[in-house]
Amino acid sequence: MKYKALHKLSYGLYIISTSYSGRSYGYIGNTVFQVTSSPPQLAISCHKDNVSASKILKSKVFSVSVLQKETDTSLIGRFGFMSGDSIDKFSDISTITAVTGAPVVVDDTVAWFDCEVVSVTDAGSHLIIVGLIKESDLLSDEEPLTYAYYREKYKMLAPKNAPTYIEKTKLEEEGLQGKDKEAEEGEESADKDDMDTYTCSICGYRYDPAEGDPSSNIPPGTPFSELPEDYRCPVCNAEKEYFKKS
Amino acid sequence: MKYKALHKLSYGLYIISTSYSGRSYGYIGNTVFQVTSSPPQLAISCHKDNVSASKILKSKVFSVSVLQKETDTSLIGRFGFMSGDSIDKFSDISTITAVTGAPVVVDDTVAWFDCEVVSVTDAGSHLIIVGLIKESDLLSDEEPLTYAYYREKYKMLAPKNAPTYIEKTKLEEEGLQGKDKEAEEGEESADKDDMDTYTCSICGYRYDPAEGDPSSNIPPGTPFSELPEDYRCPVCNAEKEYFKKS
Repeated sequence: MKYKALHKLSYGLYIISTSYSGRSYGYIGNTVFQVTSSPPQLAISCHKDNVSASKILKSKVFSVSVLQKETDTSLIGRFGFMSGDSIDKFSDISTITAVTGAPVVVDDTVAWFDCEVVSVTDAGSHLIIVGLIKESDLLSDEEPLTYAYYREKYKMLAPKNAPTYIEKTKLEEEGLQGKDKEAEEGEESADKDDMDTYTCSICGYRYDPAEGDPSSNIPPGTPFSELPEDYRCPVCNAEKEYFKKS
Repeated sequence: MKYKALHKLSYGLYIISTSYSGRSYGYIGNTVFQVTSSPPQLAISCHKDNVSASKILKSKVFSVSVLQKETDTSLIGRFGFMSGDSIDKFSDISTITAVTGAPVVVDDTVAWFDCEVVSVTDAGSHLIIVGLIKESDLLSDEEPLTYAYYREKYKMLAPKNAPTYIEKTKLEEEGLQGKDKEAEEGEESADKDDMDTYTCSICGYRYDPAEGDPSSNIPPGTPFSELPEDYRCPVCNAEKEYFKKS
């Protein structure tokens, strides 16, 4: 079994939301796909431990927001790597309420779907939830964000509850990942300590001194040790102390 | 309900194959996705009328070949738009047999998975089939073919049995598609008859004189009427007579 083969499957990135008992819940997912055209139905795959998923099972409704290619990283950090227990993911986020009553995130969204749950299949650690589309809209002609682009741009691993999560040890058994290898080769020709990459232990974002962090105005060539003390992870907003040498 | 919103969902393109009673069956699908990582499981969504799908239900095994970005159009035509009743889709195609016994297409393939069926969910016109990955391999580092790239390159509509198929009338109700609109605007400034686009009635490929057909060495600016008599659809190999004015 070659786990890296799984990286060749193509996905988009979406915010899946619901509301239950007067509160909104949402998470970032990559497994959203159309299963039938008549009637139009979507399916999502989500981890049983996902709080939002447990609320979808109760509310029987969910919305899907298709994120645009250049989505604000803080939106991804908020919905992808933070718990609704510690922050209100929906504060200062633009949403609308569609026909099922589920909140629909419209920030950085190119299209959305509002669905009613019609079936749930147990797939082990995850559930496959099929929803009938009750309403949908196209908000912009921009390209959608793909999982491949997101992985390439942020050099991220999938969060632990994602269907596409692969244990690091399994990847290591198959040799270094392409990106890791490139970084390692880069290190050989530079001052080793200064050019070490650091990984955010909260969300997996990797800071590479060779590239800097354009989203925080950090120029290429800036070692991690020279980042300002108030530097925050561009994806999940974690403080500098949460970064570990890769 | 805005049907065009469905075009913003991201997919790859895959050949899904099985063998039953000594014969191989296969089709092109875009809905393949990982549903769990431990154990690694994939799901596919396929139309109940699909011959290959009916054989998967009997054989209980299937393989998925992830196509590369620049896949030979005849491979897509053969597996996507032709019936196994009229041609042997697997003749002159390189395949291997993996652990489940399903044939795995390796032409133009970047990675593959060999799966054993673990569950089938009825979703109306389509079935969601979950498979446990028994073996997989990564054959190349090339980019996979995405459905967005395929649609853009060949200006194709999905085949009728695809989960992503949308009736043309539904799209027309929402106004002309972007590409159609561009073509129409182009026509206004050119000789109208000469610049008409023609659509293959077998597979939906659209010949646009403004672009020609580089895969058949037809230069941009060649009206459909001036194509050689032995011109064939680059996707499904249909003869010229199968093209209708768009």
